[in-house]
Amino acid sequence: MNPDAITLSAGSLATVAVIVVIALIAVAMALRFRAEVLRAGTGTPTMNAVAGAVQEGAAAYLRRQLRTLGVFAAIAFLLLLLLPVHGTDGSGALLLRVARSVAFLVGAIFSGLIGYLGMWLAVRANVRVAAAAHTTGRDPAMMIAVRTGACVGMATIGFGLLGAGAVVLLFRGNAALVLEGFGFGAAMVAMFMRVGGGIFTKAADVGADLVGKVEQNIPEDDPRNAATIADNVGDNVGDCAGMAADLFESYAVTLVAALILGRAAFGESGMVFPLIVPAIGVVTALIGLYLIRPRDGVSALVTIRRSFFVAAIISAVLCAIAAFAYLPGSFAELGMADAGAAVDDPRIVAAGSVAIGIALGVLILYLTGYYTGTEDRPVQQVAATSRTGAATVVLSGFGLGLESAVFTALVIAGAVFAAFLLGGAGVTGLFAIALAGCGLLTTVGVIVAMDTFGPVADNAQGIAEMSGDVDGEGAQVLTELDAVGNTTKAITKGIAIATAVLAATALFGSYTDAIHEVLGERYQQFLDQAVVFSPQTLVGVIIGAAVVFLFSGLAINAVGRAAGAVVYEVRRQFREIAGIMEGTAKPEYGKVVDIVTRDSLRELATPGLLAVAAPIAVGFGLSAPALAGYLAGAIASGVLMAILLANSGGAWDNAKKIVEDGHHGGKGSESHAATVIGDTVGDPFKDTAGPAINPLIKVMNLVAVLIAPAVVGMSALSGDANPLRYAIAAVAVLLIAVAVAISIRRGVVLEDTGDDEAERARVVEGSGS
Amino acid sequence: MNPDAITLSAGSLATVAVIVVIALIAVAMALRFRAEVLRAGTGTPTMNAVAGAVQEGAAAYLRRQLRTLGVFAAIAFLLLLLLPVHGTDGSGALLLRVARSVAFLVGAIFSGLIGYLGMWLAVRANVRVAAAAHTTGRDPAMMIAVRTGACVGMATIGFGLLGAGAVVLLFRGNAALVLEGFGFGAAMVAMFMRVGGGIFTKAADVGADLVGKVEQNIPEDDPRNAATIADNVGDNVGDCAGMAADLFESYAVTLVAALILGRAAFGESGMVFPLIVPAIGVVTALIGLYLIRPRDGVSALVTIRRSFFVAAIISAVLCAIAAFAYLPGSFAELGMADAGAAVDDPRIVAAGSVAIGIALGVLILYLTGYYTGTEDRPVQQVAATSRTGAATVVLSGFGLGLESAVFTALVIAGAVFAAFLLGGAGVTGLFAIALAGCGLLTTVGVIVAMDTFGPVADNAQGIAEMSGDVDGEGAQVLTELDAVGNTTKAITKGIAIATAVLAATALFGSYTDAIHEVLGERYQQFLDQAVVFSPQTLVGVIIGAAVVFLFSGLAINAVGRAAGAVVYEVRRQFREIAGIMEGTAKPEYGKVVDIVTRDSLRELATPGLLAVAAPIAVGFGLSAPALAGYLAGAIASGVLMAILLANSGGAWDNAKKIVEDGHHGGKGSESHAATVIGDTVGDPFKDTAGPAINPLIKVMNLVAVLIAPAVVGMSALSGDANPLRYAIAAVAVLLIAVAVAISIRRGVVLEDTGDDEAERARVVEGSGS
Repeated sequence: MNPDAITLSAGSLATVAVIVVIALIAVAMALRFRAEVLRAGTGTPTMNAVAGAVQEGAAAYLRRQLRTLGVFAAIAFLLLLLLPVHGTDGSGALLLRVARSVAFLVGAIFSGLIGYLGMWLAVRANVRVAAAAHTTGRDPAMMIAVRTGACVGMATIGFGLLGAGAVVLLFRGNAALVLEGFGFGAAMVAMFMRVGGGIFTKAADVGADLVGKVEQNIPEDDPRNAATIADNVGDNVGDCAGMAADLFESYAVTLVAALILGRAAFGESGMVFPLIVPAIGVVTALIGLYLIRPRDGVSALVTIRRSFFVAAIISAVLCAIAAFAYLPGSFAELGMADAGAAVDDPRIVAAGSVAIGIALGVLILYLTGYYTGTEDRPVQQVAATSRTGAATVVLSGFGLGLESAVFTALVIAGAVFAAFLLGGAGVTGLFAIALAGCGLLTTVGVIVAMDTFGPVADNAQGIAEMSGDVDGEGAQVLTELDAVGNTTKAITKGIAIATAVLAATALFGSYTDAIHEVLGERYQQFLDQAVVFSPQTLVGVIIGAAVVFLFSGLAINAVGRAAGAVVYEVRRQFREIAGIMEGTAKPEYGKVVDIVTRDSLRELATPGLLAVAAPIAVGFGLSAPALAGYLAGAIASGVLMAILLANSGGAWDNAKKIVEDGHHGGKGSESHAATVIGDTVGDPFKDTAGPAINPLIKVMNLVAVLIAPAVVGMSALSGDANPLRYAIAAVAVLLIAVAVAISIRRGVVLEDTGDDEAERARVVEGSGS
Repeated sequence: MNPDAITLSAGSLATVAVIVVIALIAVAMALRFRAEVLRAGTGTPTMNAVAGAVQEGAAAYLRRQLRTLGVFAAIAFLLLLLLPVHGTDGSGALLLRVARSVAFLVGAIFSGLIGYLGMWLAVRANVRVAAAAHTTGRDPAMMIAVRTGACVGMATIGFGLLGAGAVVLLFRGNAALVLEGFGFGAAMVAMFMRVGGGIFTKAADVGADLVGKVEQNIPEDDPRNAATIADNVGDNVGDCAGMAADLFESYAVTLVAALILGRAAFGESGMVFPLIVPAIGVVTALIGLYLIRPRDGVSALVTIRRSFFVAAIISAVLCAIAAFAYLPGSFAELGMADAGAAVDDPRIVAAGSVAIGIALGVLILYLTGYYTGTEDRPVQQVAATSRTGAATVVLSGFGLGLESAVFTALVIAGAVFAAFLLGGAGVTGLFAIALAGCGLLTTVGVIVAMDTFGPVADNAQGIAEMSGDVDGEGAQVLTELDAVGNTTKAITKGIAIATAVLAATALFGSYTDAIHEVLGERYQQFLDQAVVFSPQTLVGVIIGAAVVFLFSGLAINAVGRAAGAVVYEVRRQFREIAGIMEGTAKPEYGKVVDIVTRDSLRELATPGLLAVAAPIAVGFGLSAPALAGYLAGAIASGVLMAILLANSGGAWDNAKKIVEDGHHGGKGSESHAATVIGDTVGDPFKDTAGPAINPLIKVMNLVAVLIAPAVVGMSALSGDANPLRYAIAAVAVLLIAVAVAISIRRGVVLEDTGDDEAERARVVEGSGS
């Protein structure tokens, strides 16, 4: 495809300009919500002392994390400059390369910024929610949490739309190429924030629980536990900063795929319509967010869920109207070939695809709620198995996770297939899938808001508990809000993985597009080798699926290691600082935060490297068809593993809540102990490994798209080889092998030395045995 | 391909006849080993009473299971008659269809027979091993267990080779088509025996442990526990009958794939050479088995492992000699096109491929030993995490499983890719993969023997414990043999899944071959749609991966349900039968066996149905390319899931043994309790869900091969539709949905009724809430 074939008309440019204005309005609304939150009262001095410690810890962690990421980003920036750009020859190529690298940096900075902003506000909102619960009751407390979410939600979609719109305005026909850089930057930073934040939050949480609840028998968030501040910091850097960056990245990547494919399928309109859909999403998100108002006798969850449905329905209607108003009635009028769509009417294809995406969001909301909610059969059964011990709790929760993963994956696959049937084989079908992704994006504003609600409510409860200033009705309000936050967090994960699958499937089109341009008439050869039953492709599928397993294993083990370090530090403080248990001395919270910070940053390197280097190793080392198989394997096993981990973790968490509510023996019973074990197993499942798979899939797809021209350029297909190709693959394999070996060797070695301090040192230093 | 194009020459027929004679010799040797085992002394009357109960329970279960399978087999027989045969038109077609259906029955009967025979001998060998340990010491005891394994091993490979050889002699050029039926029959029965036996053995084991070790604090195999006989029966119907049938089926299916592809790649020689390789395996297996002799100061495991290596090396050498003696030096001399092999020398391609398969077996032996053995770092680390509780044990074992799955899958994928590079793209590459599978088969004789060793040693210990007649040195001998058995069982699982991947990858070739014949020149259209990034194929990949997850979840949950029923029955007996705890009254062992038998047979229906109906639903409901994607997804996620489950389970088991050996607090400590929970979680992982995935993959591939002509016959590719096609898919989906819904609804409902008897009834009847 010739990049200059499409120059946008004045009308299109005007439309995009309007969209950019809408994006700016979204950012303005975010600022407005932020001001609203900050206006609220900040409570007692004790509360502020606790909140201050959390703010400090979270900011320190994110700053160090972003600095670490800066190094990665600089390397990636340079490598991107070296990689050829497909579809251009001569003059424009260098400019495009530079533009793509700059866009990469902008995407990376936006992604980090959104995460930082989300965290910044959340650690200020938490104390305000606690104060409001203490003084003015449920409704104002809930509204502060909701407005915090609204700010982050609007910022996410505002910046996402702004970035995409600005690139289209600036680069027009070449926008898609530049956007690959933007999407890659956003996805890479999001992945690192997800992994690092996920390890942080769960290492602190699991470590705090193991010493606090299990060994010392003190409640959660007890100020005598040196890990409590770290635990609260974790909620913010993991659930809040990580998820915001992640959904921003979903937004960016989906738009990238849609714009690339839209240009090929619908021509000029195809580069504008994918921006119109999320612009409508900005409007409906605002409506949805304003609809979330506390009502007497209605639980917060019902209110939030209802707003989601209303926003979704309005989005579907408005997008259909936009499709019929903006698009012509036949492919011929678009100046494009029909490409086998079910109907020769781009309006129906577009509106239908967007509707499929929105319907998918609603279905996932329902399925996740069913499988992780305390009201429904599945979690109740897991809770019931606590009567035969921890082993049956773990088994039943894992079984539930496997089952729910299948149904959710089938729903997502169904959406892909439905869009494909609507759009037909070929590029229109792929564009339809990307449009379904855009449809799902219209819900992201509300989703981010729902998700941010979780850590804010959780932290508010923590601050209240630690300060000791909130009791009675106020404490009950905070408990209710925390439970709601748990469910909204689970739903967000389902939606996030759905966007990943749709975006990745659509990106597949960009991958082959890039290969097509380089290979020209030899493209058929590539197609013949990329059939799914060709051994090289099948090997690619197996490796792709394996990388998801390895990534998950590394993340889970990283939490185990870091949590071990927390356990030893907290034990040391109990032993060495006299008076902690009696409340006469304060533990050194900062030390635990430091340890977790250091460990998380060290642990995120291996999974991060794996995500970037593995596609390079497969592409250059095996072949372009093997890399295609690799992506398919990663998507398939990624969606299943992500939901398995998220839902089994969510189910264990809520099974514990059921027992704590007095069933099967209630708090303190053996059943309760069994569900606590299940919950601890689920912690790194649902909050570290599971959600990180979502950006992982997209990073790998984007790497594949970016290296595709170089891969086929060096060796058209497996056969005639350029030695450089093997050198690149060897370096990638070597990097992965060394990193994985270091992670595995690090291990958690707890020998029977009887000397906890020595053990802690060994664990922390990673000197192995 | 015209089925009459190849008629075997007299020389080839004579070679095959010799191979059939070798197969008969293998069967004769099996009878000889059997006689050797039965000649040994049977010990004290108390031992015989215990053994008699186990024999009775195992025989009763297998008889009922085979009767249940008879119904499935009859239905499949009729359906097979209806399915068109590809590659024939006119006169011969009906005859071939009938022959294929008859071959299906023969394969099914052989598979059941091998399982039954293995179980029959194992339940007679166990008491003899116990008696020998009691009276004559380690070496005679070990030899009885080894000879039992040798009998089952020789029978497995004898019957497998006999079936394949006889079909080739009778049907010559059409042998491959008929063998599809043989392989399908063997695989289907093996899968059901694996699932049913797996549920039986772990339901009894987990149930016995939960009441015995956890609640009543009595040791394993204590005669006061009503579930002990069921537990010992389970070892035989699961590990022994199930694994023998499974490996027989691997044998049959690998040969099917090799013969189909061999004909296409090497012509006539390609139908004979794949039989020569396992015939050599018969000889080397005999050598290996005779090499297993107890030596002073050398552990049984070292002896067994050394025999495996020696047999493997001799196999590789003999196969290379056979290739150079039997095959000509160029593809032209074979009368075939070169098809892009790395070298134009069929001898090197054949010998190299076989060597790759044998090397793969050795590598897996090493990897599995490293990840599940008590001597190496990984399991020692899992044991160390027991010091921070059960949750960290579960997490570290799961992380280990994920990691080891990746490395094992990469080794298997590497073997596939190496064979593919050797054979080149096209049918020669696929044949090379099938030959690697044949190479792996040469080790099956020793592998089955190693595996059968496990349950026999385990049971011998059980009988000794229950009879109370063996103590001192005798008891120590049995403990040592039991530990060896645990490791050999783990290794077998790794090899079994490797054969599944190689066979399934090769079967892919048969699938496309069948489609090619029906589609003719429209085949390119199929290829273009079967590229891995086409949305329909990708959806197939996701569904295929999902089915493996669902199958695993169903199997794990089935164990949970059936174990629950055991728990309630054993509790009831302790409560209602006075004097059990004091040893003055005997529990009703038979009742528990009955309950587990009934539950296992009921529970195997849903996973079994899923395996057969899911490819039908995808093939007819979506398209032939989607079915191809489905198979790739199932293979990729199947190999990873199977090894994840097998190795994490093995690691937990051995982590417990490390703690029981006195580390981290030793028996009775909190660390020990933590590892017991890990071990219980691992039970259904490693002995139910994990090993059943292996036949699952092959059943699904064979179903795809069998329905391929009908699928493309009804609707060439997604597009022009025959309504019957959707009707078939709808029936398949409906069957799956109903079966899965019944299984899920069945649940384990333990409400707080305070009435255990009522609860048990509800669990057993599956009336749900």
